Formats: sequence, structure tokens, C-alpha cells
Amino acid sequence: MIVIGEKINATRAAVREMIEQRQADRLVDLARKQAAAGATYIDVNVGTGKGSQQDEIDAMRWAITTLKAAVEKPFCIDSADPQVLEAGLEVIAGGPVMINSIKADAACLDAVLPLADRYRAVVVALAMDHRGIPETAEGRIRACRMIAEGCGAHNVPMASVYFDPLVLPVATDSRQGKVTLDTLTAIKATFPGARTTMGLSNVSFGLPGRTLLNAAFLQMAVYAGLDAAIMDPLNQDMMQAARTAEALMGKDRYFRKYSRALRKGPQKGENQ
Amino acid sequence: MIVIGEKINATRAAVREMIEQRQADRLVDLARKQAAAGATYIDVNVGTGKGSQQDEIDAMRWAITTLKAAVEKPFCIDSADPQVLEAGLEVIAGGPVMINSIKADAACLDAVLPLADRYRAVVVALAMDHRGIPETAEGRIRACRMIAEGCGAHNVPMASVYFDPLVLPVATDSRQGKVTLDTLTAIKATFPGARTTMGLSNVSFGLPGRTLLNAAFLQMAVYAGLDAAIMDPLNQDMMQAARTAEALMGKDRYFRKYSRALRKGPQKGENQ
Repeated sequence: MIVIGEKINATRAAVREMIEQRQADRLVDLARKQAAAGATYIDVNVGTGKGSQQDEIDAMRWAITTLKAAVEKPFCIDSADPQVLEAGLEVIAGGPVMINSIKADAACLDAVLPLADRYRAVVVALAMDHRGIPETAEGRIRACRMIAEGCGAHNVPMASVYFDPLVLPVATDSRQGKVTLDTLTAIKATFPGARTTMGLSNVSFGLPGRTLLNAAFLQMAVYAGLDAAIMDPLNQDMMQAARTAEALMGKDRYFRKYSRALRKGPQKGENQ
Repeated sequence: MIVIGEKINATRAAVREMIEQRQADRLVDLARKQAAAGATYIDVNVGTGKGSQQDEIDAMRWAITTLKAAVEKPFCIDSADPQVLEAGLEVIAGGPVMINSIKADAACLDAVLPLADRYRAVVVALAMDHRGIPETAEGRIRACRMIAEGCGAHNVPMASVYFDPLVLPVATDSRQGKVTLDTLTAIKATFPGARTTMGLSNVSFGLPGRTLLNAAFLQMAVYAGLDAAIMDPLNQDMMQAARTAEALMGKDRYFRKYSRALRKGPQKGENQ
């Protein structure tokens, strides 16, 4: 499982404070903790929703400069604004990097895919278009096709794309869990060279026992073809769920990662 | 989820003692506990592997007579011997009942399917033939096709069949988890009128953290199309895993069963 650590996101109050007050030590600490817990990429989203575009560009440049000097993991530059993305990519300049995200929207594809090409970045591609998130798996696959065409036109190979089938709360529409998994299955069938990712926690919004639901959904998604997840690597239950699912799918040689996670994780699962 | 409670099985020493010494109270207690915990069917397997065929016929007749008088749940008559099956079916005579099991073997089909027809029983059909369990999903589907033909010839409708894709330990062959789930997916596509079941615990044989693995496998299987499971209904982690998976798949109106299981179950899943 490729884990994209989600914790550096300025919509969280603590992170907004780190960004606004340029608290390098706290920011680095948050990245290091995620790296130590098994994150493959560290997501960095500095959008506070308050400042100007220039504020966000400056914040991204500062955050990536600060983190790059201290943490040896690739970063996932996370913004809806192509200029903010570019500010982060310029700092990385040549190293492995992920862009989060693009969608099936001509203006977005034309602005961001040239950056992906220039910086040899891998890209998270959301299965949605300018109108929003299609309700059905068919609609989401249509969005993915438009993105794949854009990638072809801009010299971005399918091997650099992580399609995100998108996750909506099942409490609002109980069919949406299956729609997401069916989209995942269809993405793997339609774009065999591409990989897949998703943010999990939305699925359980508004329901009790959220980790139970998120873990179960992650495990179902691994069978449906999930390669990566945008998640909290500090949540041991979720990390263990990911290792368990991959072990069951034969993706963990000699069950090494599973067994290690079990030894380090919460003591449970032994009552049978 | 249709839960087939597995605990009355004479391969377990305590149950063998109940059977051999005709301890009606203990046997009834074990059935009642499973019923109260949410079992839909109570499996009854009296095969100790020691006595004569007549011993086993007598034991089945006694067990079903005893249980039928005390527990208002349908039973799953579990034996490889058609005459033992018939001894149990005769006692039920007319009520809902399940036969466990048939396989793709002409002698087995010709002996058991007439019983299924006569007693209007539903049948667990193992995806294996007289040579054993095929290694691939394709091989197992071939076995299912032979069973489906036999059912057609013997007037047993597909709606009365629960195909079991069969579960082997991933510790022995790490590809087998995916083979089972792919078989399940193929069964649902090939026989849309049939249902599916499986015994879960075999998947984790020889590995630590068995409940974690069994629960994850159950949840993946629910996405792949699992309708029923042969399991221990007294294991709250597994029951909660089943409810969670069905809630995510939109099979639990207003999340009632999930929420109830969460209130009654082990307190966890709230740390997010």
C-alpha cells in the first residue's frame, strides 16, 4: 500500500497556525512522524481559505523548502491552484513528487498537465468533471477517460496517474460505497497501466464507529484494486487494516509487513 | 448477512462429548446461544470420525429431534454421508432446512439432490469435484457448472443453492485469498439466481491475528458478493465485521443493524 500522509493540511486549525506563523519545527515534526509511521508520500496543503493567492504561493514555497531540508520522503503538492502547485514543484525541482490533484476539466488539465510533464510528477486524478462528482460509476469513468486523453496530449504516461474514484458519505446515500468500489474496479479494467488512490474517511461521515467503517472500506477497496490511500498514517488501526488486506491479497511476501504491523499495533485480533 | 452458526460440530471435543453422551441440555444451550447472537441457521455436524454409519445416523436423528423441540431456527444438516443427511431431514420433515454439502461429483449429486428436492431444502454447493479443490477460479467455476446442471436435472432451483467458493490458508499459498474472492465474483456473474456462502476461518490458518484476517476477508467477500457465512456467531468482532461490510454496501437500511451491533459489541472504532 502506498500511503499518502494527509496530516499537513491547513484546513486543520493546528496546521493553519504552523503555516501562518511559519513554525518550522512543528511542521517538520508532523512530517517526520508520518514518515516514521510508514507514509510513502507526505501531502502538503497550505490553503487556509483566507489569504490571497500570493500568500498561498509563499506558504507553499516556505513549507516545501522547510520540509525538503529535513525529511527524506517525496511530497504530494496539494492545491486546486496551478500557481501554488508550481511554487511547490519549483522547490522540489527534479526529485520524485506527486501533484494532488487534477480533474476532467479542460482548464485544469491544460494548466496542470504541462507541470506534471515538466517536473516528471505523478498525478492524483479525480473522477469528476467541472459539474462535480458523477453519481454513477459510468459517469466517473467518463471523467477518467477525458483525463486519460488529456494525459496523452500532454505527454503524461498512464503509469504516472493515480485515479481517485472519489468517496462520498454512505450516511447521505447508502449506494455510494458500492459506486466508489465499482468505479475502482472499472478503472483497473479500463486503464491497466494506471494506479488508484482515494481518501477514505469521507465514507463514514456522520456515522458512529468511523474507524471500523473506514478500515472495512479500505479492505474492500484493496480487493477492488486500490494501490494507494490518502490517510492518517498515525492511525494504527487503519495502517493495520491496510497491511491485513494486502497480506490477504498475496502482496506481502512471507507476511512480513503484516506480522510487523501486528507486533507494533494495538493488541487485538487474537481472541479466536 | 445470513449467518450459519458453526459451533455444533463433533470435531470439537466438547461437542463430541455432548453427542456421545446425549447431553441434550448442553446441546440445546449451544444452539440457543448462537440463535440469540444472530445465527440464521444452526449447523449440526455429528460426525466424530470414530463410530459406525449407524451410530452417526442415530446421533443425527437424536440431535435434530432434541434441537427442533427447543430452538425455533432452521437447521443446517451437515454430513458427507447422504444417509446421515436423510436421517436429519426426516426429522425436520417439511420445515425450512439446509443441506451441507454437495460437490461436483456424480455419485454425490445423484444421492443428495433428490433429498434436496423431496425436502425442499436449500443446499451448500462446494466448488470442488471428486479430485479435490481446483487451484484456480476457472477450475472452481467448472465444478459449479456441473453442480448447476445436476440441480437442473433434479428439479432443484438455483434460488435454493448457496455456492461455496472454498477458502484455503493464505499462509500455504498466498494467491489463494484472491482465488476465493475471484471465484465468488465469477459465481455471482455466472449464476445470478444463486446465493453464496463460505467458511472464513481457514483463510488465516497458521498466521497470527486470525480474527483481523478473518474479518478483513469477510469484508472483502461481502463486496465480491457473499450472501452468507459459516461462522461463529458468538464472535462479536466477526459479527460486527459482517454488519459493517453490509452497511457499507447499502444492505442495512438506516444503518440499524450496524448501529445496534456497535452498541452491543466491543467498544472500539471510535478513536478517529
